[in-house]
Amino acid sequence: MASAWLCGAESEEIMKPYRQLKKQELEQLRGELEQKYEEAKSLGLKLDMSRGKPSADQLDLSMGMMDVLHSGVDLNDSEGIDCRNYGVLDGVKEAKQLLADMSEVSPDKMIIYGNSSLNVMYDTVSRAMTHGIMGHTPWCKLDKVKFLCPVPGYDRHFSITEYFGIEMICVPMTPEGPDMDLVEKLVSSDDSIKGIWCVPKYSNPQGITYSDETVHRFARLKPAAPDFRIFWDNAYCVHHLYDDDQDFLIEILEECEKAGNPDLVYKFCSTSKISFPGSGVACIATSPNNLKDIKLQLTIQTIGHDKVNQLRHVRFFQDIDGIHEHMRKHAAILRPKFEAVLDTLEQELGGLEIGSWIRPKGGYFISFDALEGCARRIVEKCREAGVVMTEAGATYPYHQDPKDSNIRIAPSFPTPEDLAKACGIFVLCVKLVSAEKLLEEMV
Amino acid sequence: MASAWLCGAESEEIMKPYRQLKKQELEQLRGELEQKYEEAKSLGLKLDMSRGKPSADQLDLSMGMMDVLHSGVDLNDSEGIDCRNYGVLDGVKEAKQLLADMSEVSPDKMIIYGNSSLNVMYDTVSRAMTHGIMGHTPWCKLDKVKFLCPVPGYDRHFSITEYFGIEMICVPMTPEGPDMDLVEKLVSSDDSIKGIWCVPKYSNPQGITYSDETVHRFARLKPAAPDFRIFWDNAYCVHHLYDDDQDFLIEILEECEKAGNPDLVYKFCSTSKISFPGSGVACIATSPNNLKDIKLQLTIQTIGHDKVNQLRHVRFFQDIDGIHEHMRKHAAILRPKFEAVLDTLEQELGGLEIGSWIRPKGGYFISFDALEGCARRIVEKCREAGVVMTEAGATYPYHQDPKDSNIRIAPSFPTPEDLAKACGIFVLCVKLVSAEKLLEEMV
Repeated sequence: MASAWLCGAESEEIMKPYRQLKKQELEQLRGELEQKYEEAKSLGLKLDMSRGKPSADQLDLSMGMMDVLHSGVDLNDSEGIDCRNYGVLDGVKEAKQLLADMSEVSPDKMIIYGNSSLNVMYDTVSRAMTHGIMGHTPWCKLDKVKFLCPVPGYDRHFSITEYFGIEMICVPMTPEGPDMDLVEKLVSSDDSIKGIWCVPKYSNPQGITYSDETVHRFARLKPAAPDFRIFWDNAYCVHHLYDDDQDFLIEILEECEKAGNPDLVYKFCSTSKISFPGSGVACIATSPNNLKDIKLQLTIQTIGHDKVNQLRHVRFFQDIDGIHEHMRKHAAILRPKFEAVLDTLEQELGGLEIGSWIRPKGGYFISFDALEGCARRIVEKCREAGVVMTEAGATYPYHQDPKDSNIRIAPSFPTPEDLAKACGIFVLCVKLVSAEKLLEEMV
Repeated sequence: MASAWLCGAESEEIMKPYRQLKKQELEQLRGELEQKYEEAKSLGLKLDMSRGKPSADQLDLSMGMMDVLHSGVDLNDSEGIDCRNYGVLDGVKEAKQLLADMSEVSPDKMIIYGNSSLNVMYDTVSRAMTHGIMGHTPWCKLDKVKFLCPVPGYDRHFSITEYFGIEMICVPMTPEGPDMDLVEKLVSSDDSIKGIWCVPKYSNPQGITYSDETVHRFARLKPAAPDFRIFWDNAYCVHHLYDDDQDFLIEILEECEKAGNPDLVYKFCSTSKISFPGSGVACIATSPNNLKDIKLQLTIQTIGHDKVNQLRHVRFFQDIDGIHEHMRKHAAILRPKFEAVLDTLEQELGGLEIGSWIRPKGGYFISFDALEGCARRIVEKCREAGVVMTEAGATYPYHQDPKDSNIRIAPSFPTPEDLAKACGIFVLCVKLVSAEKLLEEMV
């Protein structure tokens, strides 16, 4: 490991759970770790594992997208519509096909939006606030609106609901997805609960994919609120790390139809981490009733989204096979980074019982759970040593992790060399803070 | 005129005001016009003067924009930021400079948005509804919110306020802009009036540019509502028809500052009718206080707008001089079309006193005022003969033109040949409906 300069020296003696160490042993260990930490700080590093940004070489994969449209080709879609001009509210035909294939629905269930699925989700909540859903009371006219938030989860989801004053109720994640006993109980008993945030595949931050049973139970929910909706953010639908070991997620819209709940889900998707973040194409897939409801707003809100960019994506990727092929190239870059982080965690923290993590098969994150009460201090120590981690607490509504335990690791952006260094600092900080914490408990 | 096949036959005898004709003369005229109209209908035309869409040859002017970014150039902005990735919420530096120059403000007053200024305006109203403006009560919590709507005006503005249940109060346009006596009186006396829609330069549909005095009076408004804002849609800021005969509009933000009213205006702008409609770049320019307020939302709403497209625009246009040069090419295409319509109106309707119009020096529209009670019938007759006009009433809130008089003519999209034909049909329908109307009045 490239992080050998920071790790290993104390490892010969301390390979057993920290909790089994005597006070004197722990004190000696803390001393050694502090010394290493001071050495690390003196290196003046400036590394970032905080956000799920693709790296420059991942972005290079899509540079061909800049060549497919040029002054020598026409910018008409397959129906002969001039994509340079006004018109076509819900997306050009072939873009709907491409994103429908990616979303595993039929194109007539799609609306293509602009560059950001986050913006589509914001917009969906905002519309519900001002105009309500399918004729129901606008949420801004209600005394109380609540959302369920599986935790740990995606900070930007929680920011949207917080911004609109929506009360957030935490639901713990299990290895199968959100705790469905709790979801069913809450949703069926409280009509002020209007939604739930879900990242059903390679979830942010844990990389968990909802099990078949979880999806079945979602589709069969009997919400007390007729305007309850599942916000199904399928951000990592094609974002596998391995060709031969992928998670499978059941398509929810069809399950909802089967269950007689066709209008229950808004499904979001985008090419942000496929082509260029911020210059991709986002979409929503949902039932005909919901689409009709959304289009009432859409005709007022915009003259239509960027059709030239839709065309650019289609001409570059061609079809869903092109996207899968492209994602294999992303995986080839991401896989060693994920493995480097996971191997470091395993090698440096395995058996010490001062942290736990899940080995994801896709997505953008690794979720680390430190000893209770340690996350903020670990992130703070990392920062002092020049390594920026996602703020502790960010994976919980209101930035409040009740156990102060969860830390999101984003391995995608740094170079492999930087990642190894950053990881070395991280595990060092985990050890040091854990040792301190256990010593405090002994007092 | 290419429309000679439809016009002229009756013109030898009838060059005087229709109102001066005796009943028998009018009846004979109506007969002749009906015959011509039946001939016109039999041609089976399919022409459209309904929307302000650029023509294909205008769009061709920007095809070079498809070449400036390709896989052989980097997509870094002038500050070295990789525009392909996440980040940069309010726009890349050089795009802010370009659109600031176009908006005649400094770049620090700008936020660059996505592809549609209409969407920015929608968003601005929506945010005021859910969160209020600069700490004031959200509009959705108020019993009544009203907007002033200069008429005739832009239908899509009125659609936004109607969608949010905002009561619209008509204010008549004068050749100098909105009737400022009325605006001042209403705004200063009623704190439920929260905004006014303005297209201050080459207004939609009349092509009127607000006079210096009008802008001064806007900047010096003393609204009863502290959260009153002027929605200043400078859609046609560089959209001149003539190089040597242009309207000049005073920059409003600076005037507001001078008047001690710095936060009074949201100024909107976009490249929609400069590059490609729907694939352009939109922006808002406003005071530091308003910007701060807007950014509270923006950080929640989006991961940032399409920076690659911002870069594409800057690399193509280079600077404001590049935009002006480009707009001269648009003008060269648009000018003959405007002149063809105006000349036809002049030649065929001049002196008949059955309609009036303004000769605009820029923008996208010609506004025609028919005899009272005739607009709907004229538009209907045009449609029956295969010429689609903007729906009568569209230029008024709730689509209700109290005089049923105003018709918006959009000359940009058809080819010159089609435009001549469409215009011929239009003036024929104006004559026929006017003759019918005057005969009805005689009964």
